[in-house]
Amino acid sequence: MGITTVSTIAELKALSAQLLAAAPGPAGHGGGTLGLVPTMGALHRGHAELARAAVAENAVVVASVFVNPLQFGDPVDLERYPRTTEADLAVLDAAGVDIMFAPPVEEMYPGGEPAVRVTAGRLGELYEGASRPGHFDGALTVVAKLLHAGRPDTGLAPADPAGRQSYRAYFGQKDAQQLALVRRMVADLNFPVDIVPVPIVRDSDGLALSSRNRFLSDGERDAALVLSRALRLLRRRADAHEPLDIPSAEELVHMTPGVELDYLEVVDPGTLAARAENCQDTPFTGQALALIAARVGPVRLIDNVTLG
Amino acid sequence: MGITTVSTIAELKALSAQLLAAAPGPAGHGGGTLGLVPTMGALHRGHAELARAAVAENAVVVASVFVNPLQFGDPVDLERYPRTTEADLAVLDAAGVDIMFAPPVEEMYPGGEPAVRVTAGRLGELYEGASRPGHFDGALTVVAKLLHAGRPDTGLAPADPAGRQSYRAYFGQKDAQQLALVRRMVADLNFPVDIVPVPIVRDSDGLALSSRNRFLSDGERDAALVLSRALRLLRRRADAHEPLDIPSAEELVHMTPGVELDYLEVVDPGTLAARAENCQDTPFTGQALALIAARVGPVRLIDNVTLG
Repeated sequence: MGITTVSTIAELKALSAQLLAAAPGPAGHGGGTLGLVPTMGALHRGHAELARAAVAENAVVVASVFVNPLQFGDPVDLERYPRTTEADLAVLDAAGVDIMFAPPVEEMYPGGEPAVRVTAGRLGELYEGASRPGHFDGALTVVAKLLHAGRPDTGLAPADPAGRQSYRAYFGQKDAQQLALVRRMVADLNFPVDIVPVPIVRDSDGLALSSRNRFLSDGERDAALVLSRALRLLRRRADAHEPLDIPSAEELVHMTPGVELDYLEVVDPGTLAARAENCQDTPFTGQALALIAARVGPVRLIDNVTLG
Repeated sequence: MGITTVSTIAELKALSAQLLAAAPGPAGHGGGTLGLVPTMGALHRGHAELARAAVAENAVVVASVFVNPLQFGDPVDLERYPRTTEADLAVLDAAGVDIMFAPPVEEMYPGGEPAVRVTAGRLGELYEGASRPGHFDGALTVVAKLLHAGRPDTGLAPADPAGRQSYRAYFGQKDAQQLALVRRMVADLNFPVDIVPVPIVRDSDGLALSSRNRFLSDGERDAALVLSRALRLLRRRADAHEPLDIPSAEELVHMTPGVELDYLEVVDPGTLAARAENCQDTPFTGQALALIAARVGPVRLIDNVTLG
């Protein structure tokens, strides 16, 4: 059976409950599992990976495609965010997704902007949040809505003996701060869903896939490779238990014409607290996340790598 | 079967699922209904009404008793908020409640204060929010947690043909602004629960029941009656389609020694937008909510009445 497109929450809940009732579910899961893949469309191979991970683990898979106005501070950025619905549908269908949920703005925000929202607090003001005020509040608010809209009312199996929920949502590690904040939201507000992280997909030259890469000229694309090069440098030092020497990695970026570094930070993967002071002069130990953001030509790019 | 007390979310979910599996549910509901009654304890007849309303409509009823530190701006107010767990248990048992969920603070906020929260935005800065900054953000955050903690993972019936959910939460109309904000939260964030309002319970002299009434001396209690008197005055005028003449109702309060009026507002019941300008000089029509708050001796009291 191919993919079905729905545009309202009521249709989505009805169809996913119906598919769950008919689907036996993968062996070992006791059936009744549903995976949600929230996206903003403009899908690339990174999203296809998210979809495939969800399809491999769940009886029914829903992917949402919604460009959320609430998380764009800049109306021009919202306006020019790529919208490629037909191509998106083909990507999701090929990955084995059952339902594409593509609501109009009025379905998600029927009374205009919501009065009650989710806020990321201080964690939403760091890193990406520093240059995009309100971005994470808008992103968490729509993720909260999607997590509830995507959860079928009936047909989900109980949590397995290990405590794993039968409702799971898949997020890419590319948006590391968003992933950490979504996990905090789900824990802090007791949402009944497991958050599953999916590794970054890169082009063969190392550039992390992004819907914004299409706006790069060939020259800008070459320059943008310095982001992943700087992160690989940190990873090699971490693997060798050397001091990370972040300034030298920053220097690599500064030396690249056309690339304007915003931040390069080494943080705790759970709390996002900066831990650069632990890694600068002393041999690296433990676990950390290296986050980088830079402006390259017309776009702002982010990337990250796990250390340790 | 009498009431059972649990203190962890895991126990609550396990026990409510087990009771749901065993309970046929009231006729006409298709079984599988659960009512949640969130309270801060110090239960009085008003809470008993909430519990009875939930018991009348649901196969299984959970009442939570949790004094939420997040919604108290003043540590002294938090400290002296009455805690009467044994009496609360008796009240809930007599009303037919199945489970009392009484978590310690560490169960609700295991990592200390939550990083990600719900915010009421501008609506949380009006009326009660004006004198209690952050109060509604704290209240909505804990209600969001309780609504998720109280929802069993299995055993709930599908929504009925009229779209009524089989999971319902009961809130008193006494806290009218909180009720309106909880309804906004559930709509704005798509939480899968019906919010059921329960009318205010009053003493025979008209005083709205409140856990804080116990701090009033006999003389202060007499003075406090002016709140409900002022609201009744507005209601009589609304019923007669006369102009509300709010200043004369305010005057009634100002004339009462020992009562310090904070606000007396006539607002839209859904949006909480002030509509006094429509009701002052012209005959009253439509539907509205009259809200009053005043300090009487050591405590701040609130009351409200529906107009139209």
